[in-house]
Amino acid sequence: MAQATATTVTLLLLLFLSSASASVQDYCVADLSAADTPAGYPCKKVTKVTSADFVFAGLTMAGNTSNIIKAAVTPAFVGQFPGVNGLGISVARLDIAPGGVVPLHTHPGASELLVVTQGVIYAGFVDTANNVYVATLKKGEVMVFPQGLLHFQINAGGVTAVAIVTFSSSNPGLQITSFALFANSLPSPVVEKVTFLDDAEVKKLKKVLGGTG
Amino acid sequence: MAQATATTVTLLLLLFLSSASASVQDYCVADLSAADTPAGYPCKKVTKVTSADFVFAGLTMAGNTSNIIKAAVTPAFVGQFPGVNGLGISVARLDIAPGGVVPLHTHPGASELLVVTQGVIYAGFVDTANNVYVATLKKGEVMVFPQGLLHFQINAGGVTAVAIVTFSSSNPGLQITSFALFANSLPSPVVEKVTFLDDAEVKKLKKVLGGTG
Amino acid sequence: MAQATATTVTLLLLLFLSSASASVQDYCVADLSAADTPAGYPCKKVTKVTSADFVFAGLTMAGNTSNIIKAAVTPAFVGQFPGVNGLGISVARLDIAPGGVVPLHTHPGASELLVVTQGVIYAGFVDTANNVYVATLKKGEVMVFPQGLLHFQINAGGVTAVAIVTFSSSNPGLQITSFALFANSLPSPVVEKVTFLDDAEVKKLKKVLGGTG
Amino acid sequence: MAQATATTVTLLLLLFLSSASASVQDYCVADLSAADTPAGYPCKKVTKVTSADFVFAGLTMAGNTSNIIKAAVTPAFVGQFPGVNGLGISVARLDIAPGGVVPLHTHPGASELLVVTQGVIYAGFVDTANNVYVATLKKGEVMVFPQGLLHFQINAGGVTAVAIVTFSSSNPGLQITSFALFANSLPSPVVEKVTFLDDAEVKKLKKVLGGTG
Amino acid sequence: MAQATATTVTLLLLLFLSSASASVQDYCVADLSAADTPAGYPCKKVTKVTSADFVFAGLTMAGNTSNIIKAAVTPAFVGQFPGVNGLGISVARLDIAPGGVVPLHTHPGASELLVVTQGVIYAGFVDTANNVYVATLKKGEVMVFPQGLLHFQINAGGVTAVAIVTFSSSNPGLQITSFALFANSLPSPVVEKVTFLDDAEVKKLKKVLGGTG
Amino acid sequence: MAQATATTVTLLLLLFLSSASASVQDYCVADLSAADTPAGYPCKKVTKVTSADFVFAGLTMAGNTSNIIKAAVTPAFVGQFPGVNGLGISVARLDIAPGGVVPLHTHPGASELLVVTQGVIYAGFVDTANNVYVATLKKGEVMVFPQGLLHFQINAGGVTAVAIVTFSSSNPGLQITSFALFANSLPSPVVEKVTFLDDAEVKKLKKVLGGTG
Repeated sequence: MAQATATTVTLLLLLFLSSASASVQDYCVADLSAADTPAGYPCKKVTKVTSADFVFAGLTMAGNTSNIIKAAVTPAFVGQFPGVNGLGISVARLDIAPGGVVPLHTHPGASELLVVTQGVIYAGFVDTANNVYVATLKKGEVMVFPQGLLHFQINAGGVTAVAIVTFSSSNPGLQITSFALFANSLPSPVVEKVTFLDDAEVKKLKKVLGGTG
Repeated sequence: MAQATATTVTLLLLLFLSSASASVQDYCVADLSAADTPAGYPCKKVTKVTSADFVFAGLTMAGNTSNIIKAAVTPAFVGQFPGVNGLGISVARLDIAPGGVVPLHTHPGASELLVVTQGVIYAGFVDTANNVYVATLKKGEVMVFPQGLLHFQINAGGVTAVAIVTFSSSNPGLQITSFALFANSLPSPVVEKVTFLDDAEVKKLKKVLGGTG
Repeated sequence: MAQATATTVTLLLLLFLSSASASVQDYCVADLSAADTPAGYPCKKVTKVTSADFVFAGLTMAGNTSNIIKAAVTPAFVGQFPGVNGLGISVARLDIAPGGVVPLHTHPGASELLVVTQGVIYAGFVDTANNVYVATLKKGEVMVFPQGLLHFQINAGGVTAVAIVTFSSSNPGLQITSFALFANSLPSPVVEKVTFLDDAEVKKLKKVLGGTG
Repeated sequence: MAQATATTVTLLLLLFLSSASASVQDYCVADLSAADTPAGYPCKKVTKVTSADFVFAGLTMAGNTSNIIKAAVTPAFVGQFPGVNGLGISVARLDIAPGGVVPLHTHPGASELLVVTQGVIYAGFVDTANNVYVATLKKGEVMVFPQGLLHFQINAGGVTAVAIVTFSSSNPGLQITSFALFANSLPSPVVEKVTFLDDAEVKKLKKVLGGTG
Repeated sequence: MAQATATTVTLLLLLFLSSASASVQDYCVADLSAADTPAGYPCKKVTKVTSADFVFAGLTMAGNTSNIIKAAVTPAFVGQFPGVNGLGISVARLDIAPGGVVPLHTHPGASELLVVTQGVIYAGFVDTANNVYVATLKKGEVMVFPQGLLHFQINAGGVTAVAIVTFSSSNPGLQITSFALFANSLPSPVVEKVTFLDDAEVKKLKKVLGGTG
Repeated sequence: MAQATATTVTLLLLLFLSSASASVQDYCVADLSAADTPAGYPCKKVTKVTSADFVFAGLTMAGNTSNIIKAAVTPAFVGQFPGVNGLGISVARLDIAPGGVVPLHTHPGASELLVVTQGVIYAGFVDTANNVYVATLKKGEVMVFPQGLLHFQINAGGVTAVAIVTFSSSNPGLQITSFALFANSLPSPVVEKVTFLDDAEVKKLKKVLGGTG
């Protein structure tokens, strides 16, 4: 090493840097102003990427649980946290007040892994053979919900429950079954036909959840 | 070419065949007696594979629609048609009698492409922003249902409707929402909590669909 | 539920919708005017997507079989049906008049699943060990052709045969061997060298299929 | 619905269940006694799967930080938590006592997402152009480390720091650079040659970390 | 560091090793005696893996080109080189004597990258629009053949040409068009129908290449 | 065939070509002027693609080994060779003068396959259990380095060694450990903390390799 000069080394490094500069892709911070693609957003220019692109502070505070479900999902998906673009992972914070619930839902393109960080959560999922898998989870306990299956989380303690939920996609999606059925213009007769629910029940829930038709 | 002899060629071919015989994987016909893996079933021995492994005749006859939904889904997934194992594709036949319906459901790990071959089908899906996409499809018309989203099909004509539905997976799964909610032991208070449905409605449907709790 | 107000709920929904609006990707309808990427086309703006994007009516009518092969392939690939972009599936209609044939071909990046909807088709493929798999398929019968292998379809009945063929890619490609050999400028001596075919045969087929050289 | 009988429905359900029973793959709980495959472990029989397979309680207690790095990584990878097999996600608990560190390391096949749940962590990674990205993270803050890049975590507060770290793989691997260099039989001259480190330094660290050669 | 003892460190390392030992998957050396899966072969036990599993010496000697094509392909695919299992890469050596040719062929599931190490090679491929891409390659020059497309290599110099060809799959497959057509039992009328070739030509080549029918 | 006219055929071909022209994706030559995406660069227009896009001559000449490591890596990654974009493969030339070394490094997103074409190379990698796999490779011998693991190459003969190294990615990345540690602004105390190296050693190498802090 003694004979090596800083000049030589610098040249070597410049060589590597210049040859790589056009195409290096260690990461692909999302440029949300560009059109999405099936594999994620186009990348922000590497020269404009900073440490801040890989850090997200939006999960530090509790979500607002003053709502119908007494719960809040605060996402750090690619739309909020562009640094996860293309990395196959994202995260959200779950706050569930006493009596609260994250209603039955699926993530169309991701598995979910939940870690309780406060309180107690009763959670479960149903598989395609209609088998039910449930557990009451305390602080530090983990449950995994396989991709695309219906699942839910309910506060099962006397205090607000908090969980970190991570996903096997940077853009997992969230489809809440009752909102999909009752919070839009899908005509009531269609809803009834495809669910076996009564007309009165469908119309009542459409009214509660803001649906029409 | 004139100087080439059959012997030389045969030797050449034998060479290729023998070097490849241990590992060739043009296809991987499922050995359903072996344990599944995340990528599909282990392969049947190549030496036992025949044309019959790649052909399926189980969709030639109409499914039995004498049931609660007046509809039948006849699958040719890997469990019925081992030749599709690992190929990322499978198929089913849909028969919907007049008044029949394929209830609201998802395929947790696959997109679906439907081609009407007889009758008229009113079909639709709901995205995660609760937008509704519907269409009335005649013979030959195609509709695609993106992966994991809630969708349904309803007979919209006076005769039995038939469709060929294909999937972007050899093992797409099928989760019918009302069966997931009402055809198992998921306790009624839980169902009500995660769906906003009334107790009476939940208990009625559990009775109809064979659920308990 | 009684105490829930529509206002609260609407707020909740707006929250979900706004947080998701920048990045939701339940689907990615192709913007064919943008440059393709290795994973498919960039997505059309979600706000401009309608039900029509997921429906394709171009397979309702028979393709024109008044041609050299007495057959027609009518594709609903991403170029014709932008709704399948990124979903890993697409479809085509196959019409084969009596005496017609879909010549030997491959799909470079997709497996194919064929369902006969009219007539009789004799179909087959060859694997890399040169084994042949063939079947005579009647209405409703299914055959699968593993990715990238040479295969063909021949009308084997007295009437026009029709089939629905689906693919494990939204952009499967189609390479007809004889067109690749004889319908372009690949010099005849090269074609002969790489196929063992006679000069006269090559030149004759180049003339028939419009090739030069 | 009125005319529907429980018997009919039960038959319908049985039909679905039986046709699916051979091949359903909503999840693939690892059978760790079987040989692994490139896509993960073979699946435990569906009939033996219970809720417990999807729950992991091993992260509830702090790891033992009485060691050289004053830190502990408690994994819930597929080897400890078979329910994540094939789902593309896993998790670990990180405990870093005051003065502790998770030394420079990579995960060869996964990106990492870290959420601080207690204390303060100074974390960073280096990209292939040798750019450094660092941040001081407080409770609730998130940092993502793109796949395969060198990164580290250091306690930056006066109390033990705890973090939930999740990975985009069910089996992410963990390669600690100094252990790879000094905790095995890689000969000292080779280590020196490939790192530019001094002989004395290499021999000292080999002694500390238990290496030979 | 001063207070660290080798014992502490050893314990730490043992902890890592034991927790990982059941499931570590840095690599998956193929157990060729087990049944293949769609993602590759099950893994050899980690405790039996040695350096030799990752080294292959079979490409050091020239292949035997005393055959009809005056060429030899010596593969180091997963069947010959189990260390590449699951890694998405493999390699072969190509020897082409003067006048020799690697006939028109495809790799059904892989792209190919060729590097000439001796002599001159005229190579080309045809895309699905029948466009031809050809080049005359000298020592050190590289050409890439996109997945699944027809391509060929011809000796274009006075000496034996040698090339290193690598593939984007550990098991790429190799389908030589003329062998698929003429070296098996595919009936001559079928071959003629699907290729437009003359009966005399087909029968002649079947005789040369060992086919029947 | 006799009755077929060139006109008919030409029409048929035009039909295929026009229907495919909007979307054909046999390959996706990178448009390096456009923003990268997680799946690679957008594609150059098909009409502008020529044979030259698939050929790379930059590996014909030896790299300049007059530098600190007496070695040179000449890449043909997507940044230099746009034709490999999206194909999951790329290549580089390795020149190692006597006494030279390719220092310890990883490729964050790719496995590597090395073929020696001149001289002798001593190469090795370390797995996540700190096991060492090494070999002395002569001309024609092959070694594979599994994805993301630390590895190195050292000239082990009296002449310059040359190797062809290929990767399972079109953009594999290259992270040289000592450059990541010592050739940037990562503060010395941090480097020492995360590696166990002495302050003097770190400062010395920072000076040699051009780092600061």
